[in-house]
Amino acid sequence: MKFSPLFWPIELKGKFISILDETKLPSKVSYIKVRDYKGSCRAIKEMKTRAVGQVLLVFYTFLLEAKKIKRNKNILPVLQKVAKAINATRPTLSFKFMTDMVLGWVATGKPLEQSILGFLEMLKGRRIKQAEEASKLILDGDTILTHCNISGLMPLIAEFCRRQKKKIKFIVTETRPYLQGARLTAWELKKGGFDVTVIADNMVAHVLGEGKVSKVIVGADHLTKNGDIANKIGTYQIALLAKHFAIPFYVICPPPSSFASGKDIKIEIRPEEELLEFCKVRLAPKGVKGYYPAFDVTPSELITKHIHLGVGK
Amino acid sequence: MKFSPLFWPIELKGKFISILDETKLPSKVSYIKVRDYKGSCRAIKEMKTRAVGQVLLVFYTFLLEAKKIKRNKNILPVLQKVAKAINATRPTLSFKFMTDMVLGWVATGKPLEQSILGFLEMLKGRRIKQAEEASKLILDGDTILTHCNISGLMPLIAEFCRRQKKKIKFIVTETRPYLQGARLTAWELKKGGFDVTVIADNMVAHVLGEGKVSKVIVGADHLTKNGDIANKIGTYQIALLAKHFAIPFYVICPPPSSFASGKDIKIEIRPEEELLEFCKVRLAPKGVKGYYPAFDVTPSELITKHIHLGVGK
Repeated sequence: MKFSPLFWPIELKGKFISILDETKLPSKVSYIKVRDYKGSCRAIKEMKTRAVGQVLLVFYTFLLEAKKIKRNKNILPVLQKVAKAINATRPTLSFKFMTDMVLGWVATGKPLEQSILGFLEMLKGRRIKQAEEASKLILDGDTILTHCNISGLMPLIAEFCRRQKKKIKFIVTETRPYLQGARLTAWELKKGGFDVTVIADNMVAHVLGEGKVSKVIVGADHLTKNGDIANKIGTYQIALLAKHFAIPFYVICPPPSSFASGKDIKIEIRPEEELLEFCKVRLAPKGVKGYYPAFDVTPSELITKHIHLGVGK
Repeated sequence: MKFSPLFWPIELKGKFISILDETKLPSKVSYIKVRDYKGSCRAIKEMKTRAVGQVLLVFYTFLLEAKKIKRNKNILPVLQKVAKAINATRPTLSFKFMTDMVLGWVATGKPLEQSILGFLEMLKGRRIKQAEEASKLILDGDTILTHCNISGLMPLIAEFCRRQKKKIKFIVTETRPYLQGARLTAWELKKGGFDVTVIADNMVAHVLGEGKVSKVIVGADHLTKNGDIANKIGTYQIALLAKHFAIPFYVICPPPSSFASGKDIKIEIRPEEELLEFCKVRLAPKGVKGYYPAFDVTPSELITKHIHLGVGK
């Protein structure tokens, strides 16, 4: 199986963690080294890695910090401090689910390395399975519209379709302001040899109206108990438009959080400069305000099918 | 009355036409000189000026070319050539309506300068009236969402509201890929002293869902007989989302064309580089395709009220 570099963008290499710097893609494939949890938190805040990259970074960071602690020392207080710092990085993403998991493993007394590496191995297997499940929903000749980036899963879905002899095409929204669609998804799909066309975020209704799209597939950063999801800003309006045009809207989901519904999710507001500047060029004049909610919530009733990860089942 | 530079961005100055170069805004307020219809057509194609700027440019171009023709010479063949070149510049915009008007005036035998300048004076008066009409729909405390740029009318509407002692705010979509919202509308509203916040085009549903917007007002490049409009790409999905959230959707219209409905409008597809590159930085990797329809059609039933220009009535 061929994987996108975005499928597993983080590795623990002895005394440092190697992070694929997604802010430099597609012009440069480069890696950042971090040597402690503070470096990891900074990489999360600066969005050097996102989505699954952030999940992997959380687990590898615990592993890195645990390895530094001398034998016979109590590792719990140190790892609690790490958990606290990680949980404070971004409000919308439910890192707490993961940090609680790790702290729970510590309590069992089992070697932490074994627990973490075992979990990540299972995660990898289930993500591959999830891509295969998604591929079964796709028909020969379909054109898939996607938004933002699903950490290497879209090329994997396409790879499964190729094995199933289904010819498919992709339309990718550029996903302003961070351009994950144009920079990451289009890059990894093109790298995998698939047909991909970028559109601006404001072209979705027009393109759906032209009959160019047969299915929408997006990821999710957060799944609540009732099936609502939070995902990259822009997902909600694509779901509303897909509903209007009666086009199936599928979501590749993470494990559900403990939240009852999307109403409980606090939406992270990011600095306005990230919207108002591009490559150090100011887009709007000084004095004009910007509003940049990083995520939005798509209610469960707009989702044709949740494609679950299956972790915890 | 205070006017935005975008309200009347073209002037005929003796032997040349002065064009406010909108591609340089907001960082630089600069003017281009053109000395013949070929220069005008190039400026239209390169979108140095848009919307009303293009309308003014069409009329001033005829005036410029007519002035070059020696007395006693038949000006019709020359102006027919000019009309043909102008009509070929952009498929969605109905320049033909205007070029036919000018050729019609020539046929009357009345001095062309008088006809053109008289028409432009009337146009100016009616645009001011149109802004005043729009301002009457706005209530104290309203927040107006707008898309792209309506050539100086939005600050004029705001100015009328200010005189009527209504406090209002604006939310402007940045309007990818050309960023007319961030670069032009936010600039002219800020210049006029109004409260303006820029959002990305993919944030509309989220912002409407938050209850932040009380009315949507957009312009139109084309109005057909049945009330359908063509406007900057992205207008259609904003109309669909406004409908979903039961928010009034108002359109500042040009005079109607002879087309029966929006189905008759051919949508201009612009070069993919305009979408895939920004400030010479490539956003998506080489080999990835881009699709850039410049306009979309919003059907009449999504429009709460058409605010007509009244020309021809």
